Amino acid sequence: KMACCGRCFCCQCCCREGETRTPEELTILGEIPDEEQILPRKDYESLDYDRCISEPYVEVLEGMDNKKAKKYEAVHWMMVFAIGVTVGLLGLFVDFFVRLFNKLKFTVVGDSIEKCSDKGCLSLSLLELLAFNMTFVFIASVLVLIEPVAAGSGIPEIKSYLNGVKIPGIVRLRTFLCKAAGVLFSVAGGLFVGKEGPMIHSGAIVGAGLPQFQSITFRKIKFDFPYFRSDRDKRDFVSAGAAAGVAAAFGAPIGGTLFSLEEGSSFWNQALTWKVLFCSMSATFTLNFFRSGINFSKWGSFQLPGLLNFGEFKCPDGDKNCHLWTAVDLAFFVLMGVVGGLLGALFNCMNKNLAKYRIRHIHPKAKFIRVLESLLVTMVTTIVIFAASMLGECRDLSLKPSDGLFSFRLRLTHDINSTIRQFFCSNKTYNDMATLFFNPQEAAIHQLFHQDGTFSPVTLSVFFFLYFLLACWTYGVSVPSGLFVPSLLCGAAFGRLVANVLSSVRKLGMDIYSGTFALIGAAAFLGGVVRMTISLTVILIESTNEITYGLPIMITLMVAKWTGDFFNKGIYDIHIQLRGVPLLEWETEVEMDRLTASDIMETNLTYVYPHTRVQSLVSILRTTVYHAFPVVTENRQNERDFMKGNILISNNIHFKKSSVVSRAGEQRRRCQSMKSYPSSELRNVCDEQSAAVEPSEEGEDLLQQMLERRHAPYPNLYPDQSPSEEWTMEERFRPLTFHGLILRSQLVNLLIRGVCYAENQSSTNQPRLSYAEMTEDYPRYPDIHDLDLTLLSPRMIVDVTPYMNPCPYTVSPNARISQVFNLFRTMGLRHLPVVNAVGEIVGIITRHNLTHEFLMAKLRQHYITI
Amino acid sequence: KMACCGRCFCCQCCCREGETRTPEELTILGEIPDEEQILPRKDYESLDYDRCISEPYVEVLEGMDNKKAKKYEAVHWMMVFAIGVTVGLLGLFVDFFVRLFNKLKFTVVGDSIEKCSDKGCLSLSLLELLAFNMTFVFIASVLVLIEPVAAGSGIPEIKSYLNGVKIPGIVRLRTFLCKAAGVLFSVAGGLFVGKEGPMIHSGAIVGAGLPQFQSITFRKIKFDFPYFRSDRDKRDFVSAGAAAGVAAAFGAPIGGTLFSLEEGSSFWNQALTWKVLFCSMSATFTLNFFRSGINFSKWGSFQLPGLLNFGEFKCPDGDKNCHLWTAVDLAFFVLMGVVGGLLGALFNCMNKNLAKYRIRHIHPKAKFIRVLESLLVTMVTTIVIFAASMLGECRDLSLKPSDGLFSFRLRLTHDINSTIRQFFCSNKTYNDMATLFFNPQEAAIHQLFHQDGTFSPVTLSVFFFLYFLLACWTYGVSVPSGLFVPSLLCGAAFGRLVANVLSSVRKLGMDIYSGTFALIGAAAFLGGVVRMTISLTVILIESTNEITYGLPIMITLMVAKWTGDFFNKGIYDIHIQLRGVPLLEWETEVEMDRLTASDIMETNLTYVYPHTRVQSLVSILRTTVYHAFPVVTENRQNERDFMKGNILISNNIHFKKSSVVSRAGEQRRRCQSMKSYPSSELRNVCDEQSAAVEPSEEGEDLLQQMLERRHAPYPNLYPDQSPSEEWTMEERFRPLTFHGLILRSQLVNLLIRGVCYAENQSSTNQPRLSYAEMTEDYPRYPDIHDLDLTLLSPRMIVDVTPYMNPCPYTVSPNARISQVFNLFRTMGLRHLPVVNAVGEIVGIITRHNLTHEFLMAKLRQHYITI
Repeated sequence: KMACCGRCFCCQCCCREGETRTPEELTILGEIPDEEQILPRKDYESLDYDRCISEPYVEVLEGMDNKKAKKYEAVHWMMVFAIGVTVGLLGLFVDFFVRLFNKLKFTVVGDSIEKCSDKGCLSLSLLELLAFNMTFVFIASVLVLIEPVAAGSGIPEIKSYLNGVKIPGIVRLRTFLCKAAGVLFSVAGGLFVGKEGPMIHSGAIVGAGLPQFQSITFRKIKFDFPYFRSDRDKRDFVSAGAAAGVAAAFGAPIGGTLFSLEEGSSFWNQALTWKVLFCSMSATFTLNFFRSGINFSKWGSFQLPGLLNFGEFKCPDGDKNCHLWTAVDLAFFVLMGVVGGLLGALFNCMNKNLAKYRIRHIHPKAKFIRVLESLLVTMVTTIVIFAASMLGECRDLSLKPSDGLFSFRLRLTHDINSTIRQFFCSNKTYNDMATLFFNPQEAAIHQLFHQDGTFSPVTLSVFFFLYFLLACWTYGVSVPSGLFVPSLLCGAAFGRLVANVLSSVRKLGMDIYSGTFALIGAAAFLGGVVRMTISLTVILIESTNEITYGLPIMITLMVAKWTGDFFNKGIYDIHIQLRGVPLLEWETEVEMDRLTASDIMETNLTYVYPHTRVQSLVSILRTTVYHAFPVVTENRQNERDFMKGNILISNNIHFKKSSVVSRAGEQRRRCQSMKSYPSSELRNVCDEQSAAVEPSEEGEDLLQQMLERRHAPYPNLYPDQSPSEEWTMEERFRPLTFHGLILRSQLVNLLIRGVCYAENQSSTNQPRLSYAEMTEDYPRYPDIHDLDLTLLSPRMIVDVTPYMNPCPYTVSPNARISQVFNLFRTMGLRHLPVVNAVGEIVGIITRHNLTHEFLMAKLRQHYITI
Repeated sequence: KMACCGRCFCCQCCCREGETRTPEELTILGEIPDEEQILPRKDYESLDYDRCISEPYVEVLEGMDNKKAKKYEAVHWMMVFAIGVTVGLLGLFVDFFVRLFNKLKFTVVGDSIEKCSDKGCLSLSLLELLAFNMTFVFIASVLVLIEPVAAGSGIPEIKSYLNGVKIPGIVRLRTFLCKAAGVLFSVAGGLFVGKEGPMIHSGAIVGAGLPQFQSITFRKIKFDFPYFRSDRDKRDFVSAGAAAGVAAAFGAPIGGTLFSLEEGSSFWNQALTWKVLFCSMSATFTLNFFRSGINFSKWGSFQLPGLLNFGEFKCPDGDKNCHLWTAVDLAFFVLMGVVGGLLGALFNCMNKNLAKYRIRHIHPKAKFIRVLESLLVTMVTTIVIFAASMLGECRDLSLKPSDGLFSFRLRLTHDINSTIRQFFCSNKTYNDMATLFFNPQEAAIHQLFHQDGTFSPVTLSVFFFLYFLLACWTYGVSVPSGLFVPSLLCGAAFGRLVANVLSSVRKLGMDIYSGTFALIGAAAFLGGVVRMTISLTVILIESTNEITYGLPIMITLMVAKWTGDFFNKGIYDIHIQLRGVPLLEWETEVEMDRLTASDIMETNLTYVYPHTRVQSLVSILRTTVYHAFPVVTENRQNERDFMKGNILISNNIHFKKSSVVSRAGEQRRRCQSMKSYPSSELRNVCDEQSAAVEPSEEGEDLLQQMLERRHAPYPNLYPDQSPSEEWTMEERFRPLTFHGLILRSQLVNLLIRGVCYAENQSSTNQPRLSYAEMTEDYPRYPDIHDLDLTLLSPRMIVDVTPYMNPCPYTVSPNARISQVFNLFRTMGLRHLPVVNAVGEIVGIITRHNLTHEFLMAKLRQHYITI
């Protein structure tokens, strides 16, 4: 097992989930086994954005004329439009049912309370409310049991996906159904969750699934539609879908586009961005068309904002001294940003510990425990809501004269007094706490932004405190749950509180528009929690539909992010880390440039020759877990020349380029430096390697043991000729000229389809596969164990050269980390071969060699050895 | 000359501007000499976005700890902020003076007309107006004479720069001064030009210049500030500056950010984008702070939009049936998009022919002719304005009740009736033509968008027609001139005309908001002319400050672009093409993937050895024009092995990889295929090469001639040992292992600073240069001819290895064009070595090998040869 794990250079590993890390792995990562530290897991697969331009693909290219290319492009546009419309309809669906359930619930319970406040049967009302909420949450929770990936907001998952990590089940139809239905019930169940995150996730699934015309869940449904069967195309559509989700949720098409760029795209592609924006626009306006038609019977009107909107910020007409904000306010906004950042950091810290607790104590137990937890949270939340509502203060109602001057849109969205709650209060007054707690969260946000009537500071503080704690507890419970709306509401209460305090300090004599402060408070807290930058700025600007809020929102978010980053990461990044996803950041730190590609590459490779026997291939595929195999040829002749010190003679002047890394030298250097390293296991590996070079009995023994252990899971089917296994250590250091890269899935496909030729034939007799045949099984390729060995003659030979990727991007072993990282991330690669100056492959770099943790470990090692 | 030009693989060429292309060049490009066709010129240099990680840079890296990195980052942010503020102040300056001059002019002339319309002295008023305009335009035109690059909008130049092409003088201080002052006078001079394009160009210059702390114009001013001395950093700042320019001009910070992304950034870098947005915001709000302070005495208020804003689109209060737009209108918007696209294509076509005429007949003549042309345009424009104003119809004034309900901001920007003109009309009516013509263009746009009073269809048609022709004539005249505002105004007139027609057709019974139609018309025409996509959408949305216009604007722009693209390119691309800038598009066409890197690479290279004699270097530098030299070593020993057919033996199975391109084979193949090509010159080159392989007298002779011609400009200073010159053709085909790339500027620098060692010394005795010394002369490195040869001993040896780029990105000769193109464009490279499977360099790819024209020529050649 150790030998296997240590050699995973590609993404899947034999280590099963939940297994603890081997000492060797921990040593490479430079970590002491520490249960607090969660390291990137090696069992996540990478997506591949690079095209494999093999012969079948070239055939497709040759057949592709401009007419076909245009048709393909047209289908692409149609798909994008279809995704947008579907996401818009989805938003409509969620919105409609949430409204319906909420209306039902609040009408029944509200009436009951109005009645009971006189009669004193409030406990009955509470029971009614509890019954509603717990039923709803129970349904949501059961849906998540069916598909556990549907839990949470989904943004961490989508972020990982767009970053290039394949998380199992994340874009499946079943996940979509559970998520979309689940969020509806969890929101209706009165939990402090938003529907924005799940909307984004659902949108992404629509993007991934719609253009595929097939589904894993319903295997039967299969159209003959060969387009878009690659990670590259799928990821583009997922970007579009996620953007459409944001657009539908916030009515922010530009923000959505920027979101998918910020989280995902590694490079700016004008055509793609334009499509993403079109998709977002389609989603927004599909939603608005139907909403204005269904909810307000104004068919043909589009002038409604998204599901979440902040209403119109506007000074009361005629008030000449009123400003939405002034230069002086900016100073307070900066301070609020700092506080928001601190609160966000606290929220994240608490939630992180809670999540760790859940991973350790709840997840290993029976699944229904999770349902019970959700129900517990619901119960507490409901009781808190109910109890707090009774404690609210009665404030005067500032009824605006209904002067009929509001425009159509204003009337639709701005009717602020329709959502106040008068519980236990006399006429002309309202219960401020109940107004905040006993409403859908969007209505509460509207209240805080636009209610001219006041909220008492005590109410706001209590509300903020309770909400903060409950929202923190709720995020991570196994229901679909977004975090945007709770954060906004929480922050709005904080901002409104600041406004209250500032206006009450008469000495300052400040003329304050409290709605602005509530908005800035919301931005500060949300920014402190999620730490998004550009996209969040634009989303908030679009939601307020007021360009002049650009500067204050941006400054607040910037300050909140900087403050929060001082303590911990954003909540999504924390949850990504907890899942052990090997996410790649935007850039590496400057310090990392002290390392070169040869310091971080994986040097233990298994090779394939251009023409290989079936038995060797099967053996390699069964005994390794690598996802890609370099196709190499040996140059025995030149071996000695290259080995003797890399001195190249030119024009009578000697040129000793010590930096021409050879595999042998590299391997030896590595062993030397590793020996000083405090791991007994690792030392053995190196001892054994140097032992092979200077043979000794103990070393030979260990090698034998290792090889046996590697063979353990499967019997060695063909004892002769399995090249990588039988090599002596010295043979492993032979110069190997690199010719291309072939994927495991491609090899298995070749074997299953019987692509090989007999020994006495020419390789031209080998059957040829078309591009469609090569990609038919995307995205789930058959496993080597599905292969029926009896159908294959082990002595046949496979010519892999037509199917390999003949010219992947490569780097030199001396390339600095920043160069390697930029190439890898920008091009969306999965395997990056490291090739030295004379064309030998000396290693491979994958996502796992570029994670922050791995680089840090290597850097520490670098400091130790120098 | 021919030998030289044909061999330019880097960007500068000995061909001087204005010289005609050599037949050889035309052959490579596959073009018949055709004066209509303007090909990319080879004398533009490329910018380099890749870092050269040589030893001096590594030293800097080693000294860079996290503290220093943070300091550097802080300086970066400060710079970005400083750029934003400066651009904001610049906008303020331009705005202030344009307003001042316009006010002066229109007050004087307007009063005169009001008086003269009774007295009949209108010709006097015309003369006054002519005097004003021609003085202003004369000043603008003289400023452009001082710095010809300051002419035009500057967007083509900035687009080229951000694309990676260095256009001489484009970011110099002198250009800035001429542009900023010039645009002020050209706008004030009543020409149909906008100030937005020049604002963007000026912003970009601020971005390029401010962080350098020095200027070419004022050589004396030099601070010791070593940061940001690379193309990479400079280009980032230029992006920020250009974005700030857009932000200041349109009050569209997000649009500005997207503009600089769309036009420039090849890859999405979150940190950079965030800085660019911050820069844009700083510019917008600096401008607004001072404008509201100075113009309206409202210090501390920021709530003004940018210099150009479209006012607030709003239904009249109380009108319940009023919609800004409905679903039905969308159909008309699509039609308007089509018409806008057609009109835009017509505009571009006319302007292109005009520009060609100018290039052929005006530019070669004395410079004052250009001034005369500007004055002619001014005179005609002025007379047309004046004459048309007299022909306008008198329309009823629909005075809104001044009900005091407008908010502060509305009053500032929306006072629509202050700019109507009553010339020759009775009270309570106004002259519609004069209102449009006799106002600053921004005021006219406001009139078309928001005037509730009507414009007669005849007036609108005449206005549109005249304006279209004059704007088309004006763009390209040698004054700083933007195109945005004229296009918007022209389009708005068209849109308003459509609205007029639609409302007058009573049968349709449509309830139309004519402002929306004017806006959509403006978008359609502007979109048809400039063909920008995302950024233009966002700029227009931000300028209207109304998110619900997103969909119609987007659809209109999309349709307009598609329609226009059917006929020709956008106006900026046309002007870029006319200048012969080798711009790289976003992607290559699918068809291009039939070519591989080896088809397009430049194979005639001049090499440098790791240790080379001074005399050889001087000789190479003086006799070639290349900007980069591969550093290679020869492997004579293995020569024969690699040469004999590229058969590599592995594991007892032969593997013949015909795709292992070797330089020799490649060169021969090329000559064979070229021979069938109809150019006598080229055939000679190939004959001569094959002649060298199978020696014949004539061939030798030609080779000798060629070499002599190459030596012609300079005497061969050191007759012995100049490696590249003395090689026989066979020697040129020796396998050369690639070790790195060294730039001309670096070599010259090494020679000038005397970095070399004596023959009997070790290379460790060579003096070492620091990174600061290497980059001291950025961006203008000394020329080889500045070198005093008497100071150098020709027999000394230079070790270039510490200063070369040891690991540039490379590609395989078999890589497809799309892979090569993506790598080149995304990474912002300048030279991309093509290295085969055994580490030999076989060619180099530069920007010129990837232009659309070059690829098309190669593709045609490919079709011929197969």
